Amino acid sequence: MISLKKRFYKIVYPSDSRKDPNFTFDVVIITLILLNVLAVIIESVPEINARFQRGFERFEIFSVVVFTLEYLIRLWTCTEMEAYKKPVTGRLKWSLTPMALIDLLAVLPFYLPFIGVDLRFIRIFRLFRIFRLLKIARYTSALYLIRKILVNKKEELFVTLLFSVSLLIVFSTLMFYAERQAQPEVFTSIPKSMWWAVITLTSVGYGDIYPITTLGRILGGLIAISGIGLFALPTGILASGFSDEIAKRKNPGK
Amino acid sequence: MISLKKRFYKIVYPSDSRKDPNFTFDVVIITLILLNVLAVIIESVPEINARFQRGFERFEIFSVVVFTLEYLIRLWTCTEMEAYKKPVTGRLKWSLTPMALIDLLAVLPFYLPFIGVDLRFIRIFRLFRIFRLLKIARYTSALYLIRKILVNKKEELFVTLLFSVSLLIVFSTLMFYAERQAQPEVFTSIPKSMWWAVITLTSVGYGDIYPITTLGRILGGLIAISGIGLFALPTGILASGFSDEIAKRKNPGK
Amino acid sequence: MISLKKRFYKIVYPSDSRKDPNFTFDVVIITLILLNVLAVIIESVPEINARFQRGFERFEIFSVVVFTLEYLIRLWTCTEMEAYKKPVTGRLKWSLTPMALIDLLAVLPFYLPFIGVDLRFIRIFRLFRIFRLLKIARYTSALYLIRKILVNKKEELFVTLLFSVSLLIVFSTLMFYAERQAQPEVFTSIPKSMWWAVITLTSVGYGDIYPITTLGRILGGLIAISGIGLFALPTGILASGFSDEIAKRKNPGK
Amino acid sequence: MISLKKRFYKIVYPSDSRKDPNFTFDVVIITLILLNVLAVIIESVPEINARFQRGFERFEIFSVVVFTLEYLIRLWTCTEMEAYKKPVTGRLKWSLTPMALIDLLAVLPFYLPFIGVDLRFIRIFRLFRIFRLLKIARYTSALYLIRKILVNKKEELFVTLLFSVSLLIVFSTLMFYAERQAQPEVFTSIPKSMWWAVITLTSVGYGDIYPITTLGRILGGLIAISGIGLFALPTGILASGFSDEIAKRKNPGK
Repeated sequence: MISLKKRFYKIVYPSDSRKDPNFTFDVVIITLILLNVLAVIIESVPEINARFQRGFERFEIFSVVVFTLEYLIRLWTCTEMEAYKKPVTGRLKWSLTPMALIDLLAVLPFYLPFIGVDLRFIRIFRLFRIFRLLKIARYTSALYLIRKILVNKKEELFVTLLFSVSLLIVFSTLMFYAERQAQPEVFTSIPKSMWWAVITLTSVGYGDIYPITTLGRILGGLIAISGIGLFALPTGILASGFSDEIAKRKNPGK
Repeated sequence: MISLKKRFYKIVYPSDSRKDPNFTFDVVIITLILLNVLAVIIESVPEINARFQRGFERFEIFSVVVFTLEYLIRLWTCTEMEAYKKPVTGRLKWSLTPMALIDLLAVLPFYLPFIGVDLRFIRIFRLFRIFRLLKIARYTSALYLIRKILVNKKEELFVTLLFSVSLLIVFSTLMFYAERQAQPEVFTSIPKSMWWAVITLTSVGYGDIYPITTLGRILGGLIAISGIGLFALPTGILASGFSDEIAKRKNPGK
Repeated sequence: MISLKKRFYKIVYPSDSRKDPNFTFDVVIITLILLNVLAVIIESVPEINARFQRGFERFEIFSVVVFTLEYLIRLWTCTEMEAYKKPVTGRLKWSLTPMALIDLLAVLPFYLPFIGVDLRFIRIFRLFRIFRLLKIARYTSALYLIRKILVNKKEELFVTLLFSVSLLIVFSTLMFYAERQAQPEVFTSIPKSMWWAVITLTSVGYGDIYPITTLGRILGGLIAISGIGLFALPTGILASGFSDEIAKRKNPGK
Repeated sequence: MISLKKRFYKIVYPSDSRKDPNFTFDVVIITLILLNVLAVIIESVPEINARFQRGFERFEIFSVVVFTLEYLIRLWTCTEMEAYKKPVTGRLKWSLTPMALIDLLAVLPFYLPFIGVDLRFIRIFRLFRIFRLLKIARYTSALYLIRKILVNKKEELFVTLLFSVSLLIVFSTLMFYAERQAQPEVFTSIPKSMWWAVITLTSVGYGDIYPITTLGRILGGLIAISGIGLFALPTGILASGFSDEIAKRKNPGK
């Protein structure tokens, strides 16, 4: 006979149960999370908030109750897993995993209104649970492939990032010295100049801050052209990563 | 001897006739569609509309007559196709296909000016007829190749899209909480903040809305850099898809 | 003994002379063209033009004399080539080649000041002669490779372009109907809306024209995201083209 | 017994010492450089500078002393290297290498305050020493791979750059003639027009300068679309470069 804890465990940790995983609970929770995310988004519109404030409050209470129950059941049944077997230290270890912390922080602000800090924005991070849905569909292999390539190519990508950041710092400093005379109230400091540099290097270009001197424009043109490399390098790295991985699957012996 | 219906069928459905497809009719219709699109575009310029209003009206009547005839002939001859063989239910089935519905919606507003719906809205659908252009292109292997790769890689592309949308929602929410104090009339709500996020993530950067606080700028820089990944990932996926497909064609045995 | 015409021919058409090509003349002419381009650029700066007007005028006369002589010698000696062998019709045929026309249009405005139209901007097209310099250096194979891939992949690139243009027209029209009520003086016509669409789809985003209604922003977000595809598709096509060409060179038998 | 010079040499040139390289000194110096870069950045913020001016000055003196000692020890011990063996000419040759010049220029302004020119921005170039850190970590192979591909593909990349620059000059000139009548105070000269062109071609699009005439907008749309090619070509080149290099590593015989 199967214990109550084991049954609950199978429900709240479906992916860990080897056979007959039941994703119903996961789908329900993720739907509730998505509704919560939607609530956070539309609640921020003043007109909507004014009209449906009562509804949002009720939905909030309902969600927090469900999420709290989920958290408690997970905390209770996590000892079924090999890694968190010990009743006390196992549960403590589990409660310090990133996902458990986000789950706790998602409900805690409701119970601790007196702590002053508004931690409700943490709830938005639960959105990433949406990726659990991929387990149900057949998208897992795609997700796994993308993650594998990012891990395989992490060194090349890190070097690209390091080079970009160095370029960004050097250009920001040069630009600050080039423009601070002409636009003292725009290029006020190097951190401000770095904001300009990152927005130019990524080719966003808001237009709130841009060079007006000849030297500044030459530097600006150079960093804009460097931005092309910033797009081309990681793309080339990832493209070869994908090709490589697909080739490996075909000729596993190689 | 070939019946009249079969002859018409061969003219209006050239791609379904196996041998000797005659594209003359298709070219005429698509030219007329392109002229219609051109008319819609230049008609919107007030000065041009004021001068050539009469010409536009006549061209409209002529086009609608031709498109109506085309629709009726298609409806009449569609029973030649295996899928729509039955006189009544077959024709009904055909008339509910997306292409047939668009064709109907392209001419219907002209005959039903008395119905209470906003007619101008329906008229826009006529513009989708431009996608018939792709019908000609369908015969080139290029379109087939692109579509095949998009279908092959749909899982990877979907995961990328899902990740991008999640990122967009998370950053929009964080940005709203970071900027609403400093710019309450700009970052008015999370949906507004999402507009900022999508325009930044795609590296468009209009400059109508951008962060001004230090925290906001750090978040903005992070999402701008994430935008590079949003370009690099699908490009890498598609690049490997094209390479793979070309390799397959050479070594079909593999 | 070699005739005078043959000698001149060898000088002005170095790449057509099989052995011992002498590029001295080409280098001199291209240097003069580059100096002309530089003159056109810096002449446009009012302060510089005011100070060195006399010098620019003299340089102009000198350049036109040299370019005219070059043109006449080419016209005279072109009959040495198999394709333009006949004295009259051959020379006429040569003078109608694009490069000869640009060469003629580059000097003609000087002799025909009374024709009224300012054709001096045509001179800038001679800049593309700079690619002749690549013949001298060892960059020819790179230029040839890039051109070959663009030709090989022209169908895929054309389908991408066709799809982009269709998308652009459809979104421009929808955007015009979505925004013209809210911003009648900004979205004045569909051509104006197309300017917005092309600047958004290419992720430039000047910020002179952007949607402000909810529907317009949704459309704007969709076209901005489509822009990622517009970058990813040709990049993927070209990347596979380069890989394919390199693979061919290694295994020519395949 | 090992001489003092040899011992110092081993410390300041760790990568040249074949066995038992000791990177401690490198890590210390690079940390100090990073702290200097950080100081340059935050020192530029007026509020921070006002409060910690004394601290920055002291840190400056400390840094310059360390960097001067490092420079002198390097100058003294460089004769241990084969290339700079001769006491006088060898040291002179070493002091004229780019890295040695940057090291000298990084400390010189401190000792020569009377030279008038503010050379402190040169110090920022020392930031690139950060790449020495990669030697310690295992990122060297990634850095080496990226550099190798950039070198391998330098011809294709150079042709792309040459073509982009030509396009930029041609479009800038055409745009100047198209817009100078409508916006004489914006498109003041061709160099100004080139600033517009580079910001559009790289898809940054600040919005400080953009065409308003119909012809100007058509040119602007064309250059914006050309910008896609400017991203696609180098990306395709690099992607094939990475794929090629990875394939080579697997089948070294090929």
